[in-house]
Order: sequence, then C-alpha cells, then structure tokens
Amino acid sequence: MIDLRSDTVTKPDQVMRDLMRDAEVGDDVFGEDPTVNALETYAADLLGKEAALFTTSGTQGNQAALLVHTRPGQEVIMDEEAHVFLYEGGAISAFAGLQSHTLPHIEGCIDLNTLRAAVRPEDVHYPETGLIWLENTHNRGGGSVLSLEYLKNVRAIADEFNIPVHMDGARVFNAAVALGVDVKEIAAETDSLQFCLSKGLGAPVGSMLVGTKSFIHAARKKRKMLGGGMRQAGVIAAPGLYALKNRIDRLQEDHDHAEKLAEAINTYTDLKVRHTVQTNILVADTDQSARTAAEWVRLLEENGIGIIQYKAEALRFTTNIDVSSQDIDRVIKVLQELS
Amino acid sequence: MIDLRSDTVTKPDQVMRDLMRDAEVGDDVFGEDPTVNALETYAADLLGKEAALFTTSGTQGNQAALLVHTRPGQEVIMDEEAHVFLYEGGAISAFAGLQSHTLPHIEGCIDLNTLRAAVRPEDVHYPETGLIWLENTHNRGGGSVLSLEYLKNVRAIADEFNIPVHMDGARVFNAAVALGVDVKEIAAETDSLQFCLSKGLGAPVGSMLVGTKSFIHAARKKRKMLGGGMRQAGVIAAPGLYALKNRIDRLQEDHDHAEKLAEAINTYTDLKVRHTVQTNILVADTDQSARTAAEWVRLLEENGIGIIQYKAEALRFTTNIDVSSQDIDRVIKVLQELS
Amino acid sequence: MIDLRSDTVTKPDQVMRDLMRDAEVGDDVFGEDPTVNALETYAADLLGKEAALFTTSGTQGNQAALLVHTRPGQEVIMDEEAHVFLYEGGAISAFAGLQSHTLPHIEGCIDLNTLRAAVRPEDVHYPETGLIWLENTHNRGGGSVLSLEYLKNVRAIADEFNIPVHMDGARVFNAAVALGVDVKEIAAETDSLQFCLSKGLGAPVGSMLVGTKSFIHAARKKRKMLGGGMRQAGVIAAPGLYALKNRIDRLQEDHDHAEKLAEAINTYTDLKVRHTVQTNILVADTDQSARTAAEWVRLLEENGIGIIQYKAEALRFTTNIDVSSQDIDRVIKVLQELS
Amino acid sequence: MIDLRSDTVTKPDQVMRDLMRDAEVGDDVFGEDPTVNALETYAADLLGKEAALFTTSGTQGNQAALLVHTRPGQEVIMDEEAHVFLYEGGAISAFAGLQSHTLPHIEGCIDLNTLRAAVRPEDVHYPETGLIWLENTHNRGGGSVLSLEYLKNVRAIADEFNIPVHMDGARVFNAAVALGVDVKEIAAETDSLQFCLSKGLGAPVGSMLVGTKSFIHAARKKRKMLGGGMRQAGVIAAPGLYALKNRIDRLQEDHDHAEKLAEAINTYTDLKVRHTVQTNILVADTDQSARTAAEWVRLLEENGIGIIQYKAEALRFTTNIDVSSQDIDRVIKVLQELS
Repeated sequence: MIDLRSDTVTKPDQVMRDLMRDAEVGDDVFGEDPTVNALETYAADLLGKEAALFTTSGTQGNQAALLVHTRPGQEVIMDEEAHVFLYEGGAISAFAGLQSHTLPHIEGCIDLNTLRAAVRPEDVHYPETGLIWLENTHNRGGGSVLSLEYLKNVRAIADEFNIPVHMDGARVFNAAVALGVDVKEIAAETDSLQFCLSKGLGAPVGSMLVGTKSFIHAARKKRKMLGGGMRQAGVIAAPGLYALKNRIDRLQEDHDHAEKLAEAINTYTDLKVRHTVQTNILVADTDQSARTAAEWVRLLEENGIGIIQYKAEALRFTTNIDVSSQDIDRVIKVLQELS
Repeated sequence: MIDLRSDTVTKPDQVMRDLMRDAEVGDDVFGEDPTVNALETYAADLLGKEAALFTTSGTQGNQAALLVHTRPGQEVIMDEEAHVFLYEGGAISAFAGLQSHTLPHIEGCIDLNTLRAAVRPEDVHYPETGLIWLENTHNRGGGSVLSLEYLKNVRAIADEFNIPVHMDGARVFNAAVALGVDVKEIAAETDSLQFCLSKGLGAPVGSMLVGTKSFIHAARKKRKMLGGGMRQAGVIAAPGLYALKNRIDRLQEDHDHAEKLAEAINTYTDLKVRHTVQTNILVADTDQSARTAAEWVRLLEENGIGIIQYKAEALRFTTNIDVSSQDIDRVIKVLQELS
Repeated sequence: MIDLRSDTVTKPDQVMRDLMRDAEVGDDVFGEDPTVNALETYAADLLGKEAALFTTSGTQGNQAALLVHTRPGQEVIMDEEAHVFLYEGGAISAFAGLQSHTLPHIEGCIDLNTLRAAVRPEDVHYPETGLIWLENTHNRGGGSVLSLEYLKNVRAIADEFNIPVHMDGARVFNAAVALGVDVKEIAAETDSLQFCLSKGLGAPVGSMLVGTKSFIHAARKKRKMLGGGMRQAGVIAAPGLYALKNRIDRLQEDHDHAEKLAEAINTYTDLKVRHTVQTNILVADTDQSARTAAEWVRLLEENGIGIIQYKAEALRFTTNIDVSSQDIDRVIKVLQELS
Repeated sequence: MIDLRSDTVTKPDQVMRDLMRDAEVGDDVFGEDPTVNALETYAADLLGKEAALFTTSGTQGNQAALLVHTRPGQEVIMDEEAHVFLYEGGAISAFAGLQSHTLPHIEGCIDLNTLRAAVRPEDVHYPETGLIWLENTHNRGGGSVLSLEYLKNVRAIADEFNIPVHMDGARVFNAAVALGVDVKEIAAETDSLQFCLSKGLGAPVGSMLVGTKSFIHAARKKRKMLGGGMRQAGVIAAPGLYALKNRIDRLQEDHDHAEKLAEAINTYTDLKVRHTVQTNILVADTDQSARTAAEWVRLLEENGIGIIQYKAEALRFTTNIDVSSQDIDRVIKVLQELS
C-alpha cells in the first residue's frame, strides 16, 4: 500500500532499527540515559532554546506545556481548528482546567485585531488569558505555514499583554523548510515549542518540548504525572536523534511530491485542491466531484492507496518518507485512470 | 439615579423586607428550612419539573448543572457569547473540566446544521459531546428570546445523539412573557434549567435550578462542594418565593419601557438600536454617533442615568422594576436634550 | 425542642431580623453594597488582617482559600479529621486538584516532628507541599482549642519551608474566648483564616475569609467562580455585622453550659465525656454505656432534646445561643431521670 | 557497578535488542501495530482478563485506571504509603480530581475493620468512595506480598459496597512467584490491574493495564489524553512480550538473592533487616548502626555497589536481573569487610 493517510504511519528503516538495537541506555527517570540526554541537548540547540524534554507524543508535550504555563480558570487563545482543541480528548480542560477560546482562522492565522480583542481585561467575571497557542504547520489548514511576519505580530501582542506563546510545532521543520529559514527563527518568537520526531522525520515514537531551563524543569514533573517518565528510553531516543541530524532537509522531497500531486489532481480529476499546497499535506474538496469523499477513499484503497476523509466533503493526502517519487507517479496514474 | 445598568441592581421593597424579617427558618443543610422547602416546591411546580434547588447565584446553578450532567474531558456546545463562556471565570473548565465548544449565533440561536455538525463522533482523539447549552433570554443577544420552534429543533438533535440540554434561563420569565406562553412550555424542552430570582423578579439574592429528582439530589451535593449550603436561608428564600408568586406578569412593563426607550433612541439620537427589542434589554450602537460610547455613559451619568458600555461601540440599557414610567420619560427627555 | 445537635441551627432573633429588614443594600458584585462593605472592613480589622471577603459558607471560604494559595498537584498537610477532608465533598481535590496529606492528631494538634517530616522535598516524583491547614476550634477533636504555642510552632515550620498557613476558624472566636486572648493573636500566625457568622455567633447565613489585600482580591474571583457572588447581600451581612459587634463575649456562656453539662454526664450517667471540654462542643462515648448511641439519641429526642451521633459509639452535644441556662438544667434533669 | 538501587535500572540484553530491531510495526494510534496488538492479547490472557492496554509507565496505567473507574469528588481508599499517593506527583488529585483517603498499613495490608469503616455512607457532606486501591507487591512495605486471603477479604468488602478494586501490580509477578500461584488468581480479585514490563521483567520501557473490554476501551482514550498514544510502539512492545513469555519464573532468583543478602546483613553488619524478605526488595534499618544511612550509601558506592536511602534511617537493596549470584557474593564480601 502507498500510505498517504498521514506522516505518522512511517516505519523506521534499517538504519534506525540498528540504532535502536545498539543504543546506550540508562534509567531516564534518574536522568541517566545518555542517549536521551544527547537527544535533549541536541534538540535544545537546534531550536535555539535552553533546554528540551523527550515526550512520548506531541499531545504529551502540548499538555505538559499547558500545565506549566497556566493555571486552571485561565483561557488559551487558539484557532478554532487547533489540534489541541479537536484531537487531544479535551485534556486541556480535563487536566489543565483551561477554557479553549477559539477564533476563526485562515490557514492557521487568526486576524490580529480579533486576536487582540480576545485578550480578556481584568474583571471579576472573566477568566484570565493565560496563553496564546499557535500551530505550525497547521494540520487542518492543509499543512499551511505561519509566516515569520505573522509570528512577530502575534509575539508583539503577547508581549503587550505579558502572555506567553506556545507553538504546537508537530511539523515545524516542514514550516522551516518551506520558508527556507533556520527553525531557530521560528522558535525565537515562542516561549515554548513542541515538535514531533515521529511524523515527517520518520522516527517510530516521540516528540520534543523545548523552552527555558526552568520551564523544562517544571515540565519534567508534569511529564511524570502524565505517565511519560520512561526507563531505558534511549532505545527510542536513538532514532529520534538520528532523524534530527539527517532528515530535516529531505522534507523538501515530501513538499515537492505534494505539489506534483496537487497539480495532477487539479488537472486530471474533478477534485479541487484547497489552498495552495505549502508543505506535505494536501486537502482536496469533493463537493464538485461526481464521487463522494467516501467513494474516493474506497476506490483509492482498492488501488492500493491510503488517504483520509476530512469531514463530509474533503480528502487529505499526506506525503511522507515512505512514499517515493515512483509511488507518487503511481498515484497520479491511478487518479488519471479513475477520472 | 435612574439605574439602567442592569436588572441585578434592583433593591428589595418594603414587602420583601418585611417577608425577610418574618420568615420562618431552619437549618437548610439539614433540609429543615420551611421557607426554602416551600420555595423549592413552588419553583419545581411552576417550571413543570420534579424538583428544584435554591442557589446563591445563577453561576452556582449553572456550575452545579454542569457538574451533574457531564464528566471531565467532555465538551459543551454553546453559542460563542454565552454567559457561561464569557462571565463565569472559566469555572466550566476549572471545576468541571469541560471544553467549551463555542459556535457563532444570531440572537442566541445557533444554525442547526452547524450545531449538529459540532456533535463529536466516537473516536479516540475526540472529547465527547456531553451537553448542549442554551441561554434564554440571551444577554449578549440583547435580551433576545429563543422561539419554541428553535427549542424543539435543538431538543430533536439532542435526542438524536442522546445528549442532555441545559438552559441558562436567568431571564426565562422575560422569555415566557415575551412569547406569551407558560414557562413550562420552555422548560419542557430542557433537561435542566436555571433561573434567577434576583434580576427582573427583584429579589435580593438567589437563583433556582430545576430538573428531575435524581438530578437535583446530585446537584445538592455539588452545591455543598461549591459552598452554597446555607443555614437559615429562609430569610432570603422568602422574598424569592414572593417574587415568583407576584412579579412575573409585571415583566411586561419592563418590556414596554424598553420598547418605548428604543423608539426614542432611534428617533431623537444618532445612536442605533441593535436588533428588535424583545424584552428588557436594549443594545444601542454608537458607531454612527458623534459621541463615543464612553462619552455617552459619562453624559448620562451626569444626568443621573446609569447605563453600561458594551465593548468599544455599544451601550446597554436594561429596564427593571425600580425604573418607573416617569423614569423612562425622564430618560427620553435627557436623550432629546443631549441630541 | 432543646437543640444541641449543632450551633448551626440557631435562628436569628428579633434584633437580627429587624436589621435584615432595614439593611442598606446595593449590588455587591459591583462592590456597591454598603452593608457588605462595612462587614468586610469590620471583619478585617477585628482579625488584624488587611482585607476580608463575605462568603455564603465556611466551605466556600475554605475552598476559595485553597484555590488562591495553591496549584493542582500540590498537597495540603492537615489532620486526618479536618472538616475540609471529611465534610466538604472532596472539593479540595475535585476543584482545586489538591491531595489531602492527612496526619494523626490529638485534639487538632499534629505532632510537630510528624508535621515537619510530611513536608515533601524537591523530587520529580513528589507532589509539592502547598499549604498547611489548621482547624481551630477543632470540631472532631470535641471543640478543642489550638494553643498559641502550637500555632507559633506550626508557623515556624511553615516559614522554614516557605509554605502558607490557612486556618479553618469556623469557631475561632470560641478559641479566642477559651484562651482569653484577642483573636488577632491567633490570626497573626496564619496567612488566611475563615470564620463563620452562622455558628456560635448566631447569624443566619455566612462566613468571612480574611488575609492580605492581594489574597482577598484573588479570592473574590474564586468566589465568583464558586457561585458566591451575590447581589443585595447586605440583607444577610447586616445580622453578621451585628453578631461580630455584640456576640463574641457571650460565647463564654456556651462554654460554661458545656462544662456544666459534662460534669452532669460524668456524674449521673454511664456515658463518658471524652477530653476536657474546652468550648461549646462535648463528645461523650457510649462504649461503657448500657445503651447504644442510637438509643441515647432516640431517648433524648423523645424528651425534647436534640443531639447528634458520632460514628458508632459517641454522642455530640453542642451548646449555643438558643440554649439557655434553664434549658441546660432541663437537659441535666432528663439525663438524671434516664440514668 | 552492582546496581541494587532499583529493578528499574535493568538494561535490555542482546536478545531484547535484536527483537527491537526486528519488530514488526504499524501506527498503534490506528490500532495497526501487530506487535503491540500481540502484547496486549498475550497480557490479557496471562492475567485472565478480557483486554489489555500498553502504557509507557506504571504511573500512566494507574492514572488511566483512576480516570475510568471514578469521577472527581470521589475518594480512593489506599494505604498511606501507596505509590500513587507518594510518587505520582499528585496526579490522582490534579487530573482525576480524587481525594486520597489513606489508612495505616502493615506490609501493604490495611486492617479490614479500618478499611470497612473508611467507606463513606451517603451524605451531602461526604465525598463518595469510588475505588479501593491495592499495591502488590508493596514497595514501601519492603516488597511484601498481599496474601490471596487478604485479597478475597478486600474483594468481599468492595462487593458489599459495590466499589471497584484496582491493583497497582507493578511487581505483581514477584507476588505470584512468591505465593507460588498463577497470577490469574491474584488478578481475579481485582477489577483492573497494572503491571510493569520494565522492573523485574527487564524490558526497557512500558507497563500493561488489564481489565474488561469496556474498561480498556475507555482507558485507551484516557491514555491518549495523557499523551501515551504512540506510533510504531512495536519496537518497545517486542521486548515486553518477550519478557512476559520468558522471564517470570526467573524472578525466583532475585528473591533468593535478596534472602541471601538479608541473612548476610543480619549476620555480619549492625544493620537490621526490616520485615521478612518476601521478594526482591530488602529494607535495612540503620538506627542501631554505628554509621548513618548516608554513610552506608557512600561507602557502598565507593565499593561499586548502588543502593538507595529510605528516609533518614533506612536503606533499600533491590535485586534484579542484572545482578548475578557472583555479584551478590561480592556485595556480601564488601559488607563483611565494612563491618
């Protein structure tokens, strides 16, 4: 199967598998796993932050960040399709006691006046605004990239009201590659940032949370409470460290594949690609198609191609390291045949 | 001062004060306050529900309802200007661990397709939809009334997905009077409903929560946790009971006053009344006025008239039992003079 | 009935009822109720603290204090029969997210070495110690009084580890009267203190929370979240203010009554009074009695005397303002007759 | 170093490392990882339960169980040195909103009358008793084993009040081996049970939670909220599955080593082994020793032996798969030399 359902489905290759086998390990709860320590140091440096924490998932990194930055009864300003609002089981409210203050967005960007107006003034009736939340690239926005200018503008509002900024950067390296900037420039506009080792970078398990030393120190206890304290975690940190060192630049290939696929979809099918494709996620609307979204999913599956249906009338294709140029050509061929 | 800032500012008259003085009381935590018991029985009957609970505020009734209907990690579907989202300090998330799933609205009504689409399907990523929330009349909607048809349509969606419905009916008697229906018809479309004794009805303190016997039994413990268990509460229940028996029909006067005031504002000033005025709340936009909202508030105050500014460019006038016909004439005269 | 079940059952007398009728009021959510404001100012001064907040119950004052002093995931050190552990519905954990770290006690006093050892050192596994909790007088300890020396010793430990101290002083005036000290001396050893207007002081409803200005400012928002924001609350603040001004010294009578009753019980019955009776609460054990606790409760009830059963083998008698010297004589006579 | 600090420090051997390298994997969030699925099926069968869930730690399994079994405002009855009370960062209260109701214990066993008396009757003041918590073997009890008879007695009380029972069985296989029973007999007395793959069994990462199908279905969502949803988790599931199949019986060696060590300590040193040593944990008191606990730790460390200090006056030695018979002999020799 050519699996375009997500970039989370990628499997570790032989290099990563050998690294797992050979990883030097220790008890990470005691801070004694040299591979985890190396990964945390490398990740902090790479993002230009003081410290980093290895977590078992992006959700865990996000939740730990919420628990450190805020107090119950506060609000987090975010776009209305943020992963933390849609896909984290309501943990933001269940565990951190926070109200999601969701705002309309275009490709992950909230209108700046709307954002500023959403900051709560002091009043006995109001929750306080505790955090501004960004997602970059933006999953539901179709892998869209937040521009550095947008980040700087949000940062300025945050600074004006003295509110921290967290970035759910599960796919932040896709953003950096698309913008052609050092990821440090993105991270510089945030107080904390979470990114995944297990999506485009292709490691089997894990994410990183970065921030100041005191922030990460506090997040480490929150991770323990969330059950993310692992023992000989070096075995999964090893492929993560390898991915950071070797696989960032190659994300460009995934982007190229997505762009090529988008062009083909618009050319050969009655599907309509939504937005400009900026990274490795492509959303195609089916509302003008003779086939329903469910029919498209089934038909492609019968042809050995996995995609995901988005709500009633859209499809998501996600390119990734396990999908080669030949695979993309094969997908395009199938789309032509089905048209 | 002619106080149109809110209907919460009304003061108990001599009848109510005498009732407080003479109230028969007992320890309500032991269930022994006869006046509280009478009030709870009367309120349940009036709304057509099995049981009722006396709370110290609408917020407390709302929070108790949330705590009984739901579990942490669930979502509550509500309009994006609901009182529980804007004005209850984030308690919905801080105490009940719930995510507010806010949707656009027109005068308190959410588009039914949008509402239905917001109900979450079963998935390991998703919070469950635990409750649908209505506010009637709708404060930020300018005292707007939810029609019985709308309520029945929401009820049908709720039943389809087996989700309970709570109504923040702080001003539900204003809605019943405006619709010309028995309040039971409104309550019938809800699983639980909270209404205030202290707004248009003019009692000094307190609200009621109504629902099934088992719901109210559970809510009683939640009220205790919230610190709402009072001792000789009959002293404040007495004026509440009087208000329920004697002051519902007279809300029509407040509505008439608001309508008269709206006509005058549109006729004599460069303010523009937003929406049709349906009950006792009137919102006037200042964006076409030569004066700012803040200037209007100050000018009226100098003339002995209290109103409230709504965000940057609107004013709220709320008629109430302490504002007589002569007072309304006086306000209109001042508005004419200021124009 | 001579009601010795609790001092919460006392009913407002005519003086208090007249004060309720005549109270000057305003909307307390807007800070405009002059009677509430007067009560808060008076209470702060009386306790020697900067500011005070009127709450609807001791539980509400306690919960607001917890929410301000701590963060979820912290622990509160308390004795294992503290009211907040036994009788507040688990709100300390449900709303404030705190772990109750309970320790053995004698009459409300925890062994100081045990207390010190319970403070958690810094470690990724441990909850942090966020608060030390005292209850004075101690209800389950039989109305026992914490000595000033004990308070100073606890304060010293708290200061050593930089942990705040809260006192559940629902009956703190009983403690002050029993010790013969100004209540300020007790309050001085705490960061915050809650006391009730509705127990020995005989007001119908309400408690006060005192502390620094910034603490009370924060607690005011927590009270709003708990639904404790009331409108014309002056009607219940008025008798509370009266009680503070006129009824503290008379608590000595209740203590004298309890002592007299204790002597009679030990002399005439096969019940055994537990502890020395220090204030207005008397606990008598039934394990050496020919009658069970339930039988004693029933027999006294048949003779017009209300008491409460404590677990399987104890009875609680609580003297209060509604029980006169003649009533006490009558109770003693009944006890003699039943022996 | 001969590392007796804990059994969590054990490192994967070459067999496990090869299994990691060669594991068949898929995206476990989609339920597509065949190795994780095999592990979950095997674990459920082994414990005699319907279903199982792979978690990243024992804490995560415990927290997921709490979140499914209970509601905020309930209490969990447990012994006062339970891991969930001492070492899980207060998550039981912070995330699940539960009050820890701790009771005295002897080697993990609570007096049954005390346990029964701790179950709360129905009352508006009381938290409800939501769960009974057992830890087996009991860490702070010195690796003590709960007898089947004790488990059956606790089960009977739980059934009487209709309260579920969870077992923190991080080291439950040590208990089964020590009792000489099938672990199913232990699990049969519980509603849910968590056990670790990473302690005596020697896998690098992970724990299992077992229970009914519906329980595990619900726990899977809680795991996602805790950030425990992993992608190609088969790489760490593989050594866990191997451990379950091959390493349970060999725990007897660790027990034998601990017993041998205990005898030597009592014979050659002025340390006093506390309790009978039942499994792989040995606690030795230093209060009769000429050396302090800290001095013992340092001295042994200088001789290449790692142990842990327990509070002021005790030492913990934990035997494990990485400590051979020769290592034990070496430790004994050092102890002799130091005496």
